[in-house]
Amino acid sequence: MSDTVLLAHGSGGIKTQQLIQDYFFKLFDNPILNEATDSAVLDRPKGKICLTTDNFVVQPQDFPGGDIGKLAVCGTINDLAVSGAKPQYLSVGFILEEGLLLSDLMRYVKSMANTAKSAGVRIVTGDTKVVQRNNCDHLYINTTGIGTIQSEQEHISSGRKIKSGDAILINGYIGDHGMAIFSTRFPKQVSTKLLSDCNCLNELIGDLLAKKCKINFMRDPTRGGVAGVLNELSTQLNLGINILEDQLPVRPEVSGLCEILGFDPLYLANEGKVLLICPKEESEKILNIWRKHPLGKNARQIGHISNEHKGLVVMQTCYGGKRLIDPMISDPLPRIC
Amino acid sequence: MSDTVLLAHGSGGIKTQQLIQDYFFKLFDNPILNEATDSAVLDRPKGKICLTTDNFVVQPQDFPGGDIGKLAVCGTINDLAVSGAKPQYLSVGFILEEGLLLSDLMRYVKSMANTAKSAGVRIVTGDTKVVQRNNCDHLYINTTGIGTIQSEQEHISSGRKIKSGDAILINGYIGDHGMAIFSTRFPKQVSTKLLSDCNCLNELIGDLLAKKCKINFMRDPTRGGVAGVLNELSTQLNLGINILEDQLPVRPEVSGLCEILGFDPLYLANEGKVLLICPKEESEKILNIWRKHPLGKNARQIGHISNEHKGLVVMQTCYGGKRLIDPMISDPLPRIC
Repeated sequence: MSDTVLLAHGSGGIKTQQLIQDYFFKLFDNPILNEATDSAVLDRPKGKICLTTDNFVVQPQDFPGGDIGKLAVCGTINDLAVSGAKPQYLSVGFILEEGLLLSDLMRYVKSMANTAKSAGVRIVTGDTKVVQRNNCDHLYINTTGIGTIQSEQEHISSGRKIKSGDAILINGYIGDHGMAIFSTRFPKQVSTKLLSDCNCLNELIGDLLAKKCKINFMRDPTRGGVAGVLNELSTQLNLGINILEDQLPVRPEVSGLCEILGFDPLYLANEGKVLLICPKEESEKILNIWRKHPLGKNARQIGHISNEHKGLVVMQTCYGGKRLIDPMISDPLPRIC
Repeated sequence: MSDTVLLAHGSGGIKTQQLIQDYFFKLFDNPILNEATDSAVLDRPKGKICLTTDNFVVQPQDFPGGDIGKLAVCGTINDLAVSGAKPQYLSVGFILEEGLLLSDLMRYVKSMANTAKSAGVRIVTGDTKVVQRNNCDHLYINTTGIGTIQSEQEHISSGRKIKSGDAILINGYIGDHGMAIFSTRFPKQVSTKLLSDCNCLNELIGDLLAKKCKINFMRDPTRGGVAGVLNELSTQLNLGINILEDQLPVRPEVSGLCEILGFDPLYLANEGKVLLICPKEESEKILNIWRKHPLGKNARQIGHISNEHKGLVVMQTCYGGKRLIDPMISDPLPRIC
C-alpha cells in the first residue's frame, strides 16, 4: 500500500473508502459517524442551536503545543463556547495534497480525535478531497460545529448588554500562539521554548455558565489578537475601551521577542484565550472561578468599558501616557490558524 | 483598492472586514448572518437535525452550466435532500489564493447567493482564509448544511428498508457533469455544447415527501457516479443490484464522447441527479410526479434489487449479456467537484 495520499484517495472509489474506514471511522469512532451515510442525523436539540465554521490553513502544520488537527478542533469548539453555547458535534472537511504522508495524516487525525474526545464533542460527518501537488500546502481542514444555547446566553456573542464601567478580563498570557508559530517558521533566527496556547475553552467557560456568572460578552482573540477583537467591538457597538498596559499578561519571552522583531503582543494570535466582558461587580467571582482551572491560572482584568472616546480602543501605557490601539490593517503573520 | 485578493484579506483586520461587508454580507444578506458574530444562532428545529459537509475543489471553477459557487450550494443542499431532510441553513468556508481576482470572487459569491435564495436556504455564518500564491488553485469552498428531518424519513440515507424486488429510479441523464468538466479542460480536443446538470434537488425530492411516497433509499451519484453509489450500497448492505443498459438515460453526446475517450457514463459524476430505491408498486407514482418537474422530465427506472449475486452490481447489456459493474478504484477525472 502507498505511504502517501494519492489522487485516487479523493476519487470516491475504493481508495476513498479505505481511507475513511482505516483513518476516520477508526479514530473518530461513534455511532452517528458509523452510520456511514452522507449526512449525520442528530437528536432534536434542547434549545436553540449555534452553528460556526472555520478553515484551518496554519503553516507549519506542526508547532510546539499542537498541530493543525488539534487546532481545527479547538478553534471551532472555542467559537461555540465563547458564544455561550455547549459544543456538541463537529463536521470535518479535509483538503489533502497529493503526496501528503499518510503517517502525517494519521497523526493529525489522532490529534483531532483525542482533542474532541477530551472536550466531550463528537465528530459525526465528514468529506475528503485530494488536489494535485502544489495546489495545497499539505492539508487544509474545515471544521463546522454545532452547539446548544440557552436563550439567556444569546446576547453573549453580540455584546448588546455591554455597559460603561464593565470589566474586561482575559484568562491568561497573550500572544503565545502567534509567537510559537513565528519561532517555528524561523528556527535559526529565534530560539525559544514557547508553546502555543492551543486548547479547548469549553470547560473553563462552562464553569462560569454553571455558576450563573453574569457575562455580557465573550470572544476568542485568535487572528488579529486582543487588539482585533477590541477594535471590532468598539467600532460595531460604538464603545470606548480602555486597557492598561501594566495589566496585560505577556510572557517575558513573548514581550522580548516582540521588542526585537517589532511586533506587538496585542495583535498576535491566541488559540486558548477568551476575552470576557462582565459587570464590574462580577469580575472577582469570575476571576476566582477561572484561577482554579489550569487554563485560567493567570486570569486577570486588563481594562474596562469607558464613557469616553467612543469607538476607540485606548491603552494607558506603563509610563502613564495614552496610546491609541489601531485596528489592524495587515497581518504580521499570515496563516496563523 | 486592489482588484485581487491579498494576504491582508485573510488577516482578520480591516481588509477582512471590508471583504465580509462588501461581498458576503451584501449578497448573502439575512438577519442571522447580519448579526456579524462568530457563530449563528438558529431557532430550535422542529424535529431532528441533519448535518452534512462538503469541500469543493472543482477545476476549472467555471464550467458550462455552473461554477464552483453554484456547485458548493447545490452539492450540500442535495446531500441533505437525499437524506430525506429539508435543507435550511448553510455555513460557508472560503480558502482563497492570494491574487484571485476580486471580480471572480464576486461572481462566485453571487452565484452562491442566487442558488441558495432560489432553494429557500440561508447562508448564516462563514469564514475566510487567504493562502499564498501556489498554495491553492484560485479558491476552495466548504459548505456545511443543516436540515430538519422527520423521524419517518430517517431510514432513507441508510437504505435499511431496501428489499428484493425494489425498483431503482433516476431523475434523468447521467454523466453530464463529468463530461462537461472534461470538455472544459480540453477545449481543443472536445467540442460540445453539453451543460453540467448542477442543480438543487430539494424541490424535486420535497414533492415526493409531500405526497407521502414510499422511499427506501436516496443518494446523489456525484463523485464515482451511479456505479459508485450502487457498489457502495451493494457492499454495505449485501444487496444484489441489477441494472439494464438499455434503460440508462445517457445523452448521445455523452455516450459518443465516452466511446472515443474510453470512459463509462456509469462512473461519471452527476450534480443534479438522485438515485432512488422504492417498492416496485411505488415506482410509477414517483416517476409521474418527477416527470412534471423540470429536473425530472427524463426520469426512469434503470434497474431493481435482486435476490441473486448478493454484494454485486450486474448490468444486463444491450446485447443480452451480463457485465459486472466493478467498484471504481481510481477516478478518470480528479477534482470533479
